[in-house]
Amino acid sequence: MHLLILNGPNLNLLGERETAIYGTITFDSFLEKLKHRYSNISIDYQQFNIEGELIQAIHNANHLYNGIIINPGAFTHTSIALRDAIKAIDIPVVEVHISQVMAREPFRKRSYISAVSKGCIFGFGLNSYQLAIESFIAD
Amino acid sequence: MHLLILNGPNLNLLGERETAIYGTITFDSFLEKLKHRYSNISIDYQQFNIEGELIQAIHNANHLYNGIIINPGAFTHTSIALRDAIKAIDIPVVEVHISQVMAREPFRKRSYISAVSKGCIFGFGLNSYQLAIESFIAD
Amino acid sequence: MHLLILNGPNLNLLGERETAIYGTITFDSFLEKLKHRYSNISIDYQQFNIEGELIQAIHNANHLYNGIIINPGAFTHTSIALRDAIKAIDIPVVEVHISQVMAREPFRKRSYISAVSKGCIFGFGLNSYQLAIESFIAD
Amino acid sequence: MHLLILNGPNLNLLGERETAIYGTITFDSFLEKLKHRYSNISIDYQQFNIEGELIQAIHNANHLYNGIIINPGAFTHTSIALRDAIKAIDIPVVEVHISQVMAREPFRKRSYISAVSKGCIFGFGLNSYQLAIESFIAD
Amino acid sequence: MHLLILNGPNLNLLGERETAIYGTITFDSFLEKLKHRYSNISIDYQQFNIEGELIQAIHNANHLYNGIIINPGAFTHTSIALRDAIKAIDIPVVEVHISQVMAREPFRKRSYISAVSKGCIFGFGLNSYQLAIESFIAD
Amino acid sequence: MHLLILNGPNLNLLGERETAIYGTITFDSFLEKLKHRYSNISIDYQQFNIEGELIQAIHNANHLYNGIIINPGAFTHTSIALRDAIKAIDIPVVEVHISQVMAREPFRKRSYISAVSKGCIFGFGLNSYQLAIESFIAD
Amino acid sequence: MHLLILNGPNLNLLGERETAIYGTITFDSFLEKLKHRYSNISIDYQQFNIEGELIQAIHNANHLYNGIIINPGAFTHTSIALRDAIKAIDIPVVEVHISQVMAREPFRKRSYISAVSKGCIFGFGLNSYQLAIESFIAD
Amino acid sequence: MHLLILNGPNLNLLGERETAIYGTITFDSFLEKLKHRYSNISIDYQQFNIEGELIQAIHNANHLYNGIIINPGAFTHTSIALRDAIKAIDIPVVEVHISQVMAREPFRKRSYISAVSKGCIFGFGLNSYQLAIESFIAD
Amino acid sequence: MHLLILNGPNLNLLGERETAIYGTITFDSFLEKLKHRYSNISIDYQQFNIEGELIQAIHNANHLYNGIIINPGAFTHTSIALRDAIKAIDIPVVEVHISQVMAREPFRKRSYISAVSKGCIFGFGLNSYQLAIESFIAD
Amino acid sequence: MHLLILNGPNLNLLGERETAIYGTITFDSFLEKLKHRYSNISIDYQQFNIEGELIQAIHNANHLYNGIIINPGAFTHTSIALRDAIKAIDIPVVEVHISQVMAREPFRKRSYISAVSKGCIFGFGLNSYQLAIESFIAD
Amino acid sequence: MHLLILNGPNLNLLGERETAIYGTITFDSFLEKLKHRYSNISIDYQQFNIEGELIQAIHNANHLYNGIIINPGAFTHTSIALRDAIKAIDIPVVEVHISQVMAREPFRKRSYISAVSKGCIFGFGLNSYQLAIESFIAD
Amino acid sequence: MHLLILNGPNLNLLGERETAIYGTITFDSFLEKLKHRYSNISIDYQQFNIEGELIQAIHNANHLYNGIIINPGAFTHTSIALRDAIKAIDIPVVEVHISQVMAREPFRKRSYISAVSKGCIFGFGLNSYQLAIESFIAD
Repeated sequence: MHLLILNGPNLNLLGERETAIYGTITFDSFLEKLKHRYSNISIDYQQFNIEGELIQAIHNANHLYNGIIINPGAFTHTSIALRDAIKAIDIPVVEVHISQVMAREPFRKRSYISAVSKGCIFGFGLNSYQLAIESFIAD
Repeated sequence: MHLLILNGPNLNLLGERETAIYGTITFDSFLEKLKHRYSNISIDYQQFNIEGELIQAIHNANHLYNGIIINPGAFTHTSIALRDAIKAIDIPVVEVHISQVMAREPFRKRSYISAVSKGCIFGFGLNSYQLAIESFIAD
Repeated sequence: MHLLILNGPNLNLLGERETAIYGTITFDSFLEKLKHRYSNISIDYQQFNIEGELIQAIHNANHLYNGIIINPGAFTHTSIALRDAIKAIDIPVVEVHISQVMAREPFRKRSYISAVSKGCIFGFGLNSYQLAIESFIAD
Repeated sequence: MHLLILNGPNLNLLGERETAIYGTITFDSFLEKLKHRYSNISIDYQQFNIEGELIQAIHNANHLYNGIIINPGAFTHTSIALRDAIKAIDIPVVEVHISQVMAREPFRKRSYISAVSKGCIFGFGLNSYQLAIESFIAD
Repeated sequence: MHLLILNGPNLNLLGERETAIYGTITFDSFLEKLKHRYSNISIDYQQFNIEGELIQAIHNANHLYNGIIINPGAFTHTSIALRDAIKAIDIPVVEVHISQVMAREPFRKRSYISAVSKGCIFGFGLNSYQLAIESFIAD
Repeated sequence: MHLLILNGPNLNLLGERETAIYGTITFDSFLEKLKHRYSNISIDYQQFNIEGELIQAIHNANHLYNGIIINPGAFTHTSIALRDAIKAIDIPVVEVHISQVMAREPFRKRSYISAVSKGCIFGFGLNSYQLAIESFIAD
Repeated sequence: MHLLILNGPNLNLLGERETAIYGTITFDSFLEKLKHRYSNISIDYQQFNIEGELIQAIHNANHLYNGIIINPGAFTHTSIALRDAIKAIDIPVVEVHISQVMAREPFRKRSYISAVSKGCIFGFGLNSYQLAIESFIAD
Repeated sequence: MHLLILNGPNLNLLGERETAIYGTITFDSFLEKLKHRYSNISIDYQQFNIEGELIQAIHNANHLYNGIIINPGAFTHTSIALRDAIKAIDIPVVEVHISQVMAREPFRKRSYISAVSKGCIFGFGLNSYQLAIESFIAD
Repeated sequence: MHLLILNGPNLNLLGERETAIYGTITFDSFLEKLKHRYSNISIDYQQFNIEGELIQAIHNANHLYNGIIINPGAFTHTSIALRDAIKAIDIPVVEVHISQVMAREPFRKRSYISAVSKGCIFGFGLNSYQLAIESFIAD
Repeated sequence: MHLLILNGPNLNLLGERETAIYGTITFDSFLEKLKHRYSNISIDYQQFNIEGELIQAIHNANHLYNGIIINPGAFTHTSIALRDAIKAIDIPVVEVHISQVMAREPFRKRSYISAVSKGCIFGFGLNSYQLAIESFIAD
Repeated sequence: MHLLILNGPNLNLLGERETAIYGTITFDSFLEKLKHRYSNISIDYQQFNIEGELIQAIHNANHLYNGIIINPGAFTHTSIALRDAIKAIDIPVVEVHISQVMAREPFRKRSYISAVSKGCIFGFGLNSYQLAIESFIAD
Repeated sequence: MHLLILNGPNLNLLGERETAIYGTITFDSFLEKLKHRYSNISIDYQQFNIEGELIQAIHNANHLYNGIIINPGAFTHTSIALRDAIKAIDIPVVEVHISQVMAREPFRKRSYISAVSKGCIFGFGLNSYQLAIESFIAD
């Protein structure tokens, strides 16, 4: 199984800043752990601060992967273009968030992504990504 | 580890009706599969159509379980009392939904429960429950 | 033909209080008159102040009756769980109200029930129930 | 008893178009059936696409009929002038709709007519008119 | 004078949890103090997590008590059925809240109960109940 | 000076119905009194229940009159077409209402007409028309 | 007949500034003209920038005048206290505005005053006051 | 090919008034130019100020024309009846506007017509009609 | 104990006008009764129609009194400045209202004051003040 | 005449995916047809998934082209920056959409682009682009 | 250069209370520092808790000063009268706030003042006033 | 002191277009003047039309500069990702705008940036940047 993890804007800073919300582990070290745990799954990872590059990456992933695990960051709440990109491809997309977005500012309650994703996993810290992998195994 | 699965109103009908949305497996047979898979975890299950009984079950579960997996059904969108019950106890509560609620009627977009739950898992069919169990193991 | 009449919260007080709005006839005496008039129809009647019991009664009625006549009272405006119960069964449900709810407080204008009921009959006093019976005969 | 049935805009097309929503029976043939069934009631019928003519018809009907059965069509949701006309006369007006308007577009949820009508009957197809006649007999 | 104190959902946990908001005294010990202070008043007490049971208790209290002191908890913000129950009885009802609900989440600002209660007392901790008793004496 | 008084829907019933709100004087008898009082002003009068005829009357009045006194009735709150007609002509239009519309239903608070009229006179009963005539004299 | 004209905040600047909207005549010179025209009416005039003084002036005017002509200026849109003052007295109050407020910023569309005033006159420049006087004569 | 151009309220004034927005050419002279340019297409033209007549014209046009080009004027924003008429017929309807309605008052942003029309052409002056004809040729 | 009672705009008219809502007792005579009843408490009283003077009185009261009982009248719903004044001082402030404000106009449902006051007492007539005094004794 | 066609995000997928909505023709093959049809017009084409590159392309196009035909895709509904770019240049911009956006999700009803574009053409499939070219010829 | 600093309600308490938000320096001592720093500028200072006095001060300042630096405090969010006063004068007005109002309660996000002020400076503590002075020097 | 000035989309056009709003000076020539005036401060400058590049520049600036002066242009109103970037870094960020955004279109009233910036400076033309530099000196 081939999975692609896509992270949206500001998630390159994971583990370095706002550690009270996002924790102190960098995504790279977490990814190592993840790859080790799921050694029979090929996991690729990309992070983009630019919305259009994230869209392009979604286009490119179609048919190359069995699924996408996406944390769109703040684009979750503002990007209809991202929604359209997800809707345009054939492979399933799982939306994850590290924090419990529903307990934060009101403008974080609207997700343009959830309605076009196969499923949503919010609030489990970095484990949200691990559960998303489990969701592909469980199928 | 002791976990309690709580299902809200109408979920007693799982597998029997509206199978296009909720699938054809009854919760009991699914539960069997789940217990078998996680044989080292004690899993209890209760279903309530009455909001107040669900609240009482949450009160009772405190300190008896390591966590609660709750699918509040339609109470998700209307019950502040349920929210208060979850907030009042000390053990973590994970909110699950079988369907992708965010792709349904607008009034299903508001959750009183998400903000007080440890994490949310939506849209994976009955696998949403399995991923919730994984979330407790992953901790 | 077997029909079930279900009344929601506070409707046990019919004929006793707020008679300016709801009239002075008790539901039991009205029911007698109704049964007499439609002697070839079997009419059962239940009233619940507890939302979950009303939901359970709807589940139970499926396939036992040709249809349900429901006056959900105040649950009309607040209970998505009731809506889900009605949507989950196969027999037709007709929504009735004694008073003209549309001429009362603004929060009584939203009905979670209407969109999943076969038809609505509002404002004819207790005759709303009689018209609902007629609607089953007319089919 | 003298009753007047008033139909609003586009209802002249009944039975010819959008038959999935409104059925395949023309109003004229339905009216024949209705008059036959209620042979002791005098039933007049008028249809208008022009709001002001509908208003005038309501004015004219006052004291000539025992009541009006009105299906205001789309004017239901937009015409305060129609509401004022109904409020201005002394005979009771029953609002009917063929389809279950509450299950359609959001802008069809607002009725300027319901609050000034004696009662509402929605969603029973052409039988909505028959039930309206029953409502006058039941009084 | 006979007064009935009715507490809504989750208030059975008073004194045990969320003590930062609700204090550390259980309602039972507070009630003892209250009865002692107002020894010439008969004070009954009931708590319900089930909305319909609370409604039934309100029905039952009519004419048996001189008044009801109700803390509807979260039902304050969601239960029109409770409002209808209060409106349906003849004895005065005073609404109390332990915390200053107006300083909490926005969805706690809407009360379906206030408009049908004789008066409201919010934010004085358990003393809110004592002031409610004073309100009956003052009359 | 030539003035045209235009009345909108239902105002043909003035003096006959809803006399608690609109008074018991018919517009014709009021008009006589008005013409007598302002004998040096030529006053024409038209009433329409049909929006499009009212629009046509506004078009026709341009340059034939020094001004229009319009009581658009319920069209005030719903007709953008009427607004466009008034904006399209060169002579001044004064909007009058018999009742104090601002003290009635919320949907009567929106006027599409006020912003394109020279001035507004509300709530003086039939005297609103007289004051409108005074407004043309005062210029 | 004794009438009191009350002007609200900033209206002391009439004739001096924003003359494009409010004209170039000072209120004092206009008042002279008005008193001359209505020589048999006693007209008093006060202007206040302080809301509470305007309220006090309304209290004081009760029973001393036959009516009040008030231009509340910007308080129209923000002062419920002013509304309460007008509602508290027994003599009729006519609300006037110099400009056509309905054609200005959206926040000027809400009037707390209109619903408690006998009538409204907007948009006729200083003539709005003259028409208000006519409204008292016309009675 | 037979096409019908339908113009809504106030569009009879084209070329005469509000020329800053709508230009100085009358629709008749424009129509001449249009017929000359598309000499192989039969183009009929009707204009109505009365909503119900416009509805009737749409009904009548069904199957007599290959398509309708409609400029509903202000009815665009207020007439659900017009929407229903368009939805009820089988031939395609193209919505045109002369001005760029999206740059005008907020209430002109809502179109009841767009969602049921084949396509929309806004803002090209009278050329909007010509482009609509091109849209039928392009098919 | 030293308490200050502060009344807002129009409350100087208590007992004289709108007696159906506010009763027929003047505040002075009520105050006498109150001082007599609580003879061991020093009670001062001030009333202001001017918002800024009420603000100043709150500033002045700090540390001179054990608490303030404030009925802000209509300022409750409009004055953020009053809210800021209350938040700026150290002594507790109890908000009272004579009438049940929650059962009146919608704009009276918003209180800028409640969230910064220690507690709220609404709807008990003048007894609201007495209960507020009790709230200070109960502490 | 030199025209620039600009396509926004996801439009690189045209003809490949979501063909039920967008058709099966790729934009390149459509462009060939278009260039052939309008052989005397120079037509350039660019597509961008990145909002800022689209903005830059608009800046660059100024004075190099006689006009721009833009299909901003999902940026239509979210990008004020794109609106500002269009407003900042001197050449006319025509907004086109392939689908009838007004008949899709509610969030697609808001266009930041329409108000600053010369005209809009929606819903004609790829022919929307052809009509936009016609709009430049028609001038 | 002559500048007038105007402070609104509660700002007389600066340096004494709510020091976590507003700091511990009194405005008088800050003003001394400011006058010393800008010794070639004449700086006057006034503070008002009464809205109408603030309005009067703005009127009086016209032509006597080169500009006004105003911190309207809570009036920022509620006073249209203050907005009108600023709009009525000819000298530029700069709006300042000590705290970052945009990060506080939602009701502090609306400013009636910003749109009529030359510029806004928020969030720099007392330095906001110094920057406002710089803005006058920079011109 | 090292400061970074960041400009958002379309601000590369400063001095060239929409000069009525933004003036005729290019940012480069203004920057020269600024550097000359504050010769002891190191000022860097970057402009981006691409949101993600602006985000990256904010990340990069952390700890390299004493502060950032940002004019996010239209991203102010739409970019939560930008807000998150600012919140993620440790150095202070001052938000500036050239025009008085609060006096423009309603959608420019919402700023996602203000609440996370140290302070805001709006409406002083290019001087807004100079005042922002002063704000860093004043600290």
